[in-house]
Amino acid sequence: MITTLKGTNTEVNINTAGPVVIIGESINPTRRKKLVTTLQEGDFSFVLELAESQIKAGADVLDVNVGFPGVDDEKLLPETVRVLQDNIDVPLCLDSPNPRAIEAALKVARGKCLINSVNGEERSLAALLPVAKEYGAAIIGLCMDDDGITHDPEKRLAIAEKIIERALKTGINQEDVVVDPLAMAVSADPNACLVTLETIRLVHTRLGHNITQGASNISFGLPDRESLNAAFMTLSIFNGLTCPIANPEKITAAVRATDLVLGRDDFAVRFVEYFQSRQPIQY
Amino acid sequence: MITTLKGTNTEVNINTAGPVVIIGESINPTRRKKLVTTLQEGDFSFVLELAESQIKAGADVLDVNVGFPGVDDEKLLPETVRVLQDNIDVPLCLDSPNPRAIEAALKVARGKCLINSVNGEERSLAALLPVAKEYGAAIIGLCMDDDGITHDPEKRLAIAEKIIERALKTGINQEDVVVDPLAMAVSADPNACLVTLETIRLVHTRLGHNITQGASNISFGLPDRESLNAAFMTLSIFNGLTCPIANPEKITAAVRATDLVLGRDDFAVRFVEYFQSRQPIQY
Repeated sequence: MITTLKGTNTEVNINTAGPVVIIGESINPTRRKKLVTTLQEGDFSFVLELAESQIKAGADVLDVNVGFPGVDDEKLLPETVRVLQDNIDVPLCLDSPNPRAIEAALKVARGKCLINSVNGEERSLAALLPVAKEYGAAIIGLCMDDDGITHDPEKRLAIAEKIIERALKTGINQEDVVVDPLAMAVSADPNACLVTLETIRLVHTRLGHNITQGASNISFGLPDRESLNAAFMTLSIFNGLTCPIANPEKITAAVRATDLVLGRDDFAVRFVEYFQSRQPIQY
Repeated sequence: MITTLKGTNTEVNINTAGPVVIIGESINPTRRKKLVTTLQEGDFSFVLELAESQIKAGADVLDVNVGFPGVDDEKLLPETVRVLQDNIDVPLCLDSPNPRAIEAALKVARGKCLINSVNGEERSLAALLPVAKEYGAAIIGLCMDDDGITHDPEKRLAIAEKIIERALKTGINQEDVVVDPLAMAVSADPNACLVTLETIRLVHTRLGHNITQGASNISFGLPDRESLNAAFMTLSIFNGLTCPIANPEKITAAVRATDLVLGRDDFAVRFVEYFQSRQPIQY
């Protein structure tokens, strides 16, 4: 199954057979005070800097989250999308808990965006599915619903099925629903990663949809987060993850290495390309 | 299934349910000229240095290979074992293509060693199984035989079954056969790692034996070998690898991270312990 996203001038095909497409997570105010202060001043230079450095480091798509306390993101999200699309051509993933901000951004966005995210709550389905249909966007379907977060992979799968079913009824194409199995911190629950891995496996084998996840938080509260995130990323890809939302400057090595080991990078072309992009320029 | 190895004063239980036991690979002359020159002079200080640094970095067992051109390893291997066991107490893995060197080393070794390795060739089985039985050693059964190396995981599994069957007939206990699925360079064959991973999965699910592999060579000829080795290690552990032969100074982070993500390290005790052992001492 292939999910196609479009930027102003670039098309990205996310294929359930791989290789992995990286959605850069760094345009996000969490732990980035400089992003908040520059955006508050109407200064988009740091957003653009984050966009360019992520693309250089291997991002194929960029997540855009400009939510912080006091912000009017129904105004700021579309504004940021406009500035980004005036300067970079990769597809965007619009990230906000506010459906009106998502809609406002879709109104100005060119290409075909990904909405981050719709979940199984009735309110979320009702607010966002018609918007996705109207603007021809793909959606991320997050495996939680009105009952909250379940730790049972089969129940998470059932929520994914519900979101897909409702999306189809709204007229959204099946391939335009990318499932997010939900990843939680392993420090809080020793089985958290196992539950997510099993959900990925179930969604991959039974539904065959593309799968995303924002997985950096699995290592919350622990040291050497890079080793943990890399191990979890590798296992998630093996089980069916195809388009993680992550920091490409930290995760591209593990992603490219996993694709190569899994026989999805003939002659190691993409792995060597990633490696060379990290080398200092030789004069 | 549990394979027990013994040093002079330490017992190591390799459990098919995990967590992973690391067999340190560094006492090996390949690409270690200093090891050759010191051993040629009868100087064991560097061997001991390699032993201690590997144990500090997370090795539970040490592989001992002192083969280099011109060496009499029927004399040098037992001598090295004696010096090691006078100074360190972890179990040893005796690594030589020469069965007489293995036997000479077993004669002087205390505890219960692992033999690296027996393969499915008639000559190998005939030479080493009786020796393993006589000295109460465990063996590594390498998945190749008189027909050479097969790329078919089912055929590798069949070789493992043959070695186990012959070991049982010789009076060796089932749990004392640790299977090596054979790992080859991915640069030479894009499917090399996939074949090994599938062999691991088959041996784990159908035979339930402990599994080892010397996996550092999968990245031969490629840059950023650490990222590749880490990704392959993580996938191998997920599929059933329990006692890799590797460089603990490079691989322990990925091994401990994988155990934690797989729910085999409650409260992240071993992961944090590994992390702290890497920190500079604070005064």
